[in-house]
Amino acid sequence: MMTKWVYSFGQNLTEGAADARDLLGGKGANLAEMRRIGLPVPPGFTLSTEVCTWFYAHDHSYPPELEAQIAAAIARLEEETGMGFGDASAPLLLSVRSGARDSMPGMLDTVLNLGLNPARVEALAKRSGAPRFAWDSYRRFIQMYSDVVLGVDHGFFEDALEDMKAARDVREDTDLTAADLQNLTEQYLAIVAAESDAPFPETPNEQLWGAIGAVFRSWMNPRAETYRRLNHIPAEWGTAVNIQAMVFGNMGADCATGVAFTRNPSTGANEFYGEFLLNAQGEDVVAGTRTPRPLAEMKNAMPDVYNALSAVRATLESHYRDMQDIEFTIQQNKLYMLQTRSGKRTGAAALRMAVEMAEEGLISREEAILRVDALMLDQLLHPTLDPKSEKQLFVRGLPASPGAASGQVVLTADRAEELGMAGQKVILVRLETSPEDIHGMHAAAGILTARGGMTSHAAVVARGMGRACICGAGDLVIDAEAGRIKVGDQQINEGDIITLDGAAGEVYLGEVATLQPQLSGHFGTLIGWADAVRRMKIRTNAETPQDAKIALQFGAEGIGLCRTEHMFFDATRITAMREMILAEDTDGRQKALDKLLPMQRQDFIELFDIMAGLPVTIRLLDPPLHEFLPHSVEEMAEIAKQAGLQFEYVRDRAAQLRELNPMLGHRGCRLAISYPEICAMQARAIFEAAAEAGKKNAKPIDVEVMVPLAATAHEFTICREIIDATAKAVRHESAQELRYMVGTMVELPRACFVADALAAEAEFFSFGTNDLTQTALGISRDDAGQFLRTYTDAGIYARDPFVTLDIEGVGALVKMGCDKGRTQRPDIKLGICGEHGGDPDSVDFFEACGLDYVSCSPYRVPIARLAAAQATIRRQKK
Amino acid sequence: MMTKWVYSFGQNLTEGAADARDLLGGKGANLAEMRRIGLPVPPGFTLSTEVCTWFYAHDHSYPPELEAQIAAAIARLEEETGMGFGDASAPLLLSVRSGARDSMPGMLDTVLNLGLNPARVEALAKRSGAPRFAWDSYRRFIQMYSDVVLGVDHGFFEDALEDMKAARDVREDTDLTAADLQNLTEQYLAIVAAESDAPFPETPNEQLWGAIGAVFRSWMNPRAETYRRLNHIPAEWGTAVNIQAMVFGNMGADCATGVAFTRNPSTGANEFYGEFLLNAQGEDVVAGTRTPRPLAEMKNAMPDVYNALSAVRATLESHYRDMQDIEFTIQQNKLYMLQTRSGKRTGAAALRMAVEMAEEGLISREEAILRVDALMLDQLLHPTLDPKSEKQLFVRGLPASPGAASGQVVLTADRAEELGMAGQKVILVRLETSPEDIHGMHAAAGILTARGGMTSHAAVVARGMGRACICGAGDLVIDAEAGRIKVGDQQINEGDIITLDGAAGEVYLGEVATLQPQLSGHFGTLIGWADAVRRMKIRTNAETPQDAKIALQFGAEGIGLCRTEHMFFDATRITAMREMILAEDTDGRQKALDKLLPMQRQDFIELFDIMAGLPVTIRLLDPPLHEFLPHSVEEMAEIAKQAGLQFEYVRDRAAQLRELNPMLGHRGCRLAISYPEICAMQARAIFEAAAEAGKKNAKPIDVEVMVPLAATAHEFTICREIIDATAKAVRHESAQELRYMVGTMVELPRACFVADALAAEAEFFSFGTNDLTQTALGISRDDAGQFLRTYTDAGIYARDPFVTLDIEGVGALVKMGCDKGRTQRPDIKLGICGEHGGDPDSVDFFEACGLDYVSCSPYRVPIARLAAAQATIRRQKK
Repeated sequence: MMTKWVYSFGQNLTEGAADARDLLGGKGANLAEMRRIGLPVPPGFTLSTEVCTWFYAHDHSYPPELEAQIAAAIARLEEETGMGFGDASAPLLLSVRSGARDSMPGMLDTVLNLGLNPARVEALAKRSGAPRFAWDSYRRFIQMYSDVVLGVDHGFFEDALEDMKAARDVREDTDLTAADLQNLTEQYLAIVAAESDAPFPETPNEQLWGAIGAVFRSWMNPRAETYRRLNHIPAEWGTAVNIQAMVFGNMGADCATGVAFTRNPSTGANEFYGEFLLNAQGEDVVAGTRTPRPLAEMKNAMPDVYNALSAVRATLESHYRDMQDIEFTIQQNKLYMLQTRSGKRTGAAALRMAVEMAEEGLISREEAILRVDALMLDQLLHPTLDPKSEKQLFVRGLPASPGAASGQVVLTADRAEELGMAGQKVILVRLETSPEDIHGMHAAAGILTARGGMTSHAAVVARGMGRACICGAGDLVIDAEAGRIKVGDQQINEGDIITLDGAAGEVYLGEVATLQPQLSGHFGTLIGWADAVRRMKIRTNAETPQDAKIALQFGAEGIGLCRTEHMFFDATRITAMREMILAEDTDGRQKALDKLLPMQRQDFIELFDIMAGLPVTIRLLDPPLHEFLPHSVEEMAEIAKQAGLQFEYVRDRAAQLRELNPMLGHRGCRLAISYPEICAMQARAIFEAAAEAGKKNAKPIDVEVMVPLAATAHEFTICREIIDATAKAVRHESAQELRYMVGTMVELPRACFVADALAAEAEFFSFGTNDLTQTALGISRDDAGQFLRTYTDAGIYARDPFVTLDIEGVGALVKMGCDKGRTQRPDIKLGICGEHGGDPDSVDFFEACGLDYVSCSPYRVPIARLAAAQATIRRQKK
Repeated sequence: MMTKWVYSFGQNLTEGAADARDLLGGKGANLAEMRRIGLPVPPGFTLSTEVCTWFYAHDHSYPPELEAQIAAAIARLEEETGMGFGDASAPLLLSVRSGARDSMPGMLDTVLNLGLNPARVEALAKRSGAPRFAWDSYRRFIQMYSDVVLGVDHGFFEDALEDMKAARDVREDTDLTAADLQNLTEQYLAIVAAESDAPFPETPNEQLWGAIGAVFRSWMNPRAETYRRLNHIPAEWGTAVNIQAMVFGNMGADCATGVAFTRNPSTGANEFYGEFLLNAQGEDVVAGTRTPRPLAEMKNAMPDVYNALSAVRATLESHYRDMQDIEFTIQQNKLYMLQTRSGKRTGAAALRMAVEMAEEGLISREEAILRVDALMLDQLLHPTLDPKSEKQLFVRGLPASPGAASGQVVLTADRAEELGMAGQKVILVRLETSPEDIHGMHAAAGILTARGGMTSHAAVVARGMGRACICGAGDLVIDAEAGRIKVGDQQINEGDIITLDGAAGEVYLGEVATLQPQLSGHFGTLIGWADAVRRMKIRTNAETPQDAKIALQFGAEGIGLCRTEHMFFDATRITAMREMILAEDTDGRQKALDKLLPMQRQDFIELFDIMAGLPVTIRLLDPPLHEFLPHSVEEMAEIAKQAGLQFEYVRDRAAQLRELNPMLGHRGCRLAISYPEICAMQARAIFEAAAEAGKKNAKPIDVEVMVPLAATAHEFTICREIIDATAKAVRHESAQELRYMVGTMVELPRACFVADALAAEAEFFSFGTNDLTQTALGISRDDAGQFLRTYTDAGIYARDPFVTLDIEGVGALVKMGCDKGRTQRPDIKLGICGEHGGDPDSVDFFEACGLDYVSCSPYRVPIARLAAAQATIRRQKK
């Protein structure tokens, strides 16, 4: 069978349709579709994306059948238009445009007015009765074709045009006469003769093949390659080529060209929104040489056409059931549609349109849910920089936590707290942050670090607190002693103001105006619909009362990760914690633990009270103990004094505990196994608090005790025995019913391989995808800043794997963990508490794994709610 | 069907055999076997290990059929011996002994002379005509039974015996009269009455059930549990109980008891080797109250019996085809065999016996290969501490590299080199070592570190160099400034002598005498046989000419891992390396790389020359760059001066490069991707060297260029393109044929998951099981010292996973990597270059995976050769 390469759209034959996007590209498919639904589209045909593939597979040549198929399609155009492509008396002119599967605006090449030569331009002038238009079209064609096909710099032509305008003393192109333009075309052809190896082709057919080749070749030009890489578009897709009878917006005052959106793409308001230019071709809008007029003015300028366009708007919205971004041309008061596609929109607009379209009955609620990019909700939950303000970039880093914030640079957490308490806005700038900086981070409006990736300590804590944060600004050098920071030669002193754009990862000098978030009623409506369909529960990672409350407001259905160690950094507690660490034996440790017990119990009581019966997962102490010890000699001396110990002892113990790779060190359940008394104290605090809170609550608190970092079932069992024994004791002492589960955080590759054995002992798994990513990929999230941007730029990882789950590697481990776990315990409760819990693409994968819940930082809860609903819907469709 | 619980061995019925070891335990199976081959074994029967299992599953009770089966077995004993168990006139006495599947010497309980009471002891005296013997037996029985079954401290009885000996003024038990012993039994029974809740049982049947219960209960006593844990014996196995007619070595001067080995277990010499005691029971040998005489003396003392025993020796060796460890008793000049089992032996003895038995035709060469524990070869390749010398322990650590070494304590590498050059023996003591310490490690006789595990830098380098090394001596505190080290209160100054026992992980004060290794001809013979059968190739991890030469002498068949970074630490090179790291841009880096190129090329030329055509795998730069920079302010200032840079710049750059978790940092192929010029320089050095060496060699050098730490196919491809382009250039420039492969080191979990995609691009995989263990288990080998001993002691990991591959986790990843790799490239070359390449159990697993080769440190090559042969044989048998 002969392969079909060419698809016509026109009066007698329309072969494509909207669903043929992969074959015909977005533009080609929609041109055919508009033709099918009776909209005024100039006739034409599309060379399929398969021609592009053939072209690149065969050394820039064409399939043998192509020529005949194009000839047949042109014959159909000639028949419909009554003009001839080879005919000089009624010259058929063509546009040749690219059209990829996904829109790649401005990246590929286009040629308009194709088919003109000196003889045909005269005929066009005569036939149209508009010589100025004819010569203008020819001039445009020579410039465009020479630039795109022959590689002549368009600057030459622009200079000639400017010279002509100067010579004629006019401001606008439209003020030039037909004679001027004819003169200009002669100059243009002379330029081509001088600058190009090839002469300017005379015959329409030669011109057509030149243009087709240029469009296909433009698929591989550097800017297209870059765009594809950044937008994850495979090179294999190829582009289609759309060849269409020209219509002219530049024939006179009854002509125009324009672009419009069927709704307002910024606000989402249901209003017709766009711009048009009288007597112009499309490139005039793009070039910015003339200022287009708002579409509303067309109502007066061309009332009939405006009405026709409004009708088209209604038709398109009801047909496509989405906001459309359209291009049109008006030739002598007749409207022609040149393009339609779903329009890009802001987060706020997407939200409003989705809700309103559903309420209008245009789409279903499920469709409305799918229409909103969950990540865009983030824009709505945080302040943003005012786009109108002036900005001077200081340094770039990773967009670790969204939000815009300005404030004085401070270099220590203590100073941040001090100024923060005094009511000043500060930006805490650190090489990296550690748990000791928490009070300063809390006091700051934003956090900037020189090191660390998207899930470094600073990033995780900042997201949890809803602070703007930029991490891993590798060019930033911090000179804490001198009280200044610098990037190259540019230097900023402590106290100077900077502004962070957390969503963009950009730091600006001075104060930049910000806009406060507006949580409209549409937000509540949509998220309500989402909650009604989603299968997975959404929990939050929180340990402070404040975070827990915020998360509840955002709709969290429980705590999926309470990091108990965060409760030990408070000034009154760190002392007892350090005593515990510095103790010489179990007795000494026990004494210090006895001091910590009531504090930790009180924390849990508060948390249980706030969560009011929702499930709470509490993770046992996870970080290595040295994280709680100070590093400077002065601080060590101070601690030695407080604890009544020799300075040398404190120093030696700190040195003993220090680790080369703390991430892979003495942490997680390894601590509980080395020091069972720590595990016992925490279990006691948890159960005593549950007993206490249970008394107030109508029913027992659902506690989930989580053992971190288990890689073997044996480790888990050792911890579980301590926990169970403690629960038994507390149950007895308090005479309260206790309802609890013991599970493990699955965060090491080995744990996934032995998940069956683990599940035989553990009642739930919570995948710790942060650490699982670190270990599976061998990338420290704190150090990744050095190379991760290079990696994502090179496409080695399509996205930052700490932001979006690496499905091929880490995802395969999660899947293995789920599958193996279920073999031993079919109803095992499965969740995830890494940062990926708030990332929509990752949430989609977790839905596919059948997890029971995802847990994320409080500010991500709404995103996760929407993303989970979308994932449910997508899965149901399959 | 009635379950069979009891298995007889005797004149009329022998139900067990050697192959019933699981059911009857080692002792029971071999008693039956000896009986089968006609050796003089007192009749008896065995309660199977299944009784033990039943006993623990049923709350310490017995299967209902047991009683009748025991009664039937006793009836057979009575028939054969002509004595009666219930009969007071011809009293049948029994021994009741444990007997587990694997020997657990001394861990379980035993009761001898069972069946005596006042009436029967009189009958025994009368019937034997030896009243002294009768009362001595009764005395022994009361003591043993009371201790084992009734829980009376044996000290009471020993005190009474001593008092009696003092009262009679005699030295030996044998000097006490029958009356004395009768008196003593009365005292003993009084002790039991006073100390035990239960009275001493009178009837033989009661006594028998008491003894059976005690033996079964002893299976779970704490010392047995500990022994099982240390020897990896599952508790489920249980013990059998062997009940046998007593024979008596204590009836007079024509009686004796003894133990012997059919060959010398220390040297392996084919000589009868053992000890005996006249007029004694077995426990006298164990208790050490009398000194046994060498077996050779029996030739004169009891010539007939000695001849009979010699005949038994020959029979057992030819029957069991292995050296036997036997127990015997001589009753009135008649020989009785009480036990035989394969004897434990030293490494040297195992080697000699295996070779000689094969040469004698007793066993096949393959059996000989399997007889030698490959790990024991290590003993033969290094000096050992003289076991006769006095030792005072200073501290314990991990046995990181075998060998014994004494020398002065030095605390810096420079000082070690200085003294080493002056011909002094030194032990380098460091908190941990870094690549900068290499010269000092080389100059030292041994290395001791306070931190780090079995595969820390110090351990890996020391094993490679064949230096004794003890790592992770956590109790050791190093005060470098004061020039001393201490453990608790014990302090040692720089310059004091210490001795390391690398194989035991023990450090002693002062100098301890050592024995030099003797590589006997048997070693060469056996390893030759091994080479003839093994399938896998054995390569070595080496980069210095010295290591490569040693490895070749040890039989390495190529280099599996040449770590190029080790070539940069030399004083002349580190400067250029640092210049490269500190360069501000690509040009600066290129200038420094141009200096490094000729040095690195020269290294490779030497290596290729030494390896003379054997394949060489060269890994591109792997460690993070900061490892090459100094940490102290003084050194940084020095470097800044040398390089003509600002001190602040050097300090800032060093700070920028520093990492929290360097193991998961900017290293491996990430460096090649960030700085392609480094990769290009190394590729050029490799290929230019190969071209150069290829000229001298008859045929081109087989070079395998290895890209480290790839987790995605994309990373590999980026590196491969640089390498291929460089090879093309060098081929052109040198006009030399180059034969090379490009492959990757599979050392991240993700790499195993995408091994199919990797194999599409990579021609070989070398599994880096060190890093794969670190990432799969989430354990930093440098920090594991803090908890890994706790972990192996608790049985969480059966062995140190950095020594023996964790098959369940890391092994599953290796297997996945092999399987997925082969789907894309069925003939992909597969190897392993982690430390596990020299561990026999791991090698066995690698054989199962079908790897082409293992690569290990030079001193491990002989072990790997033998282990690989054993693995081949085992696999063929399956």
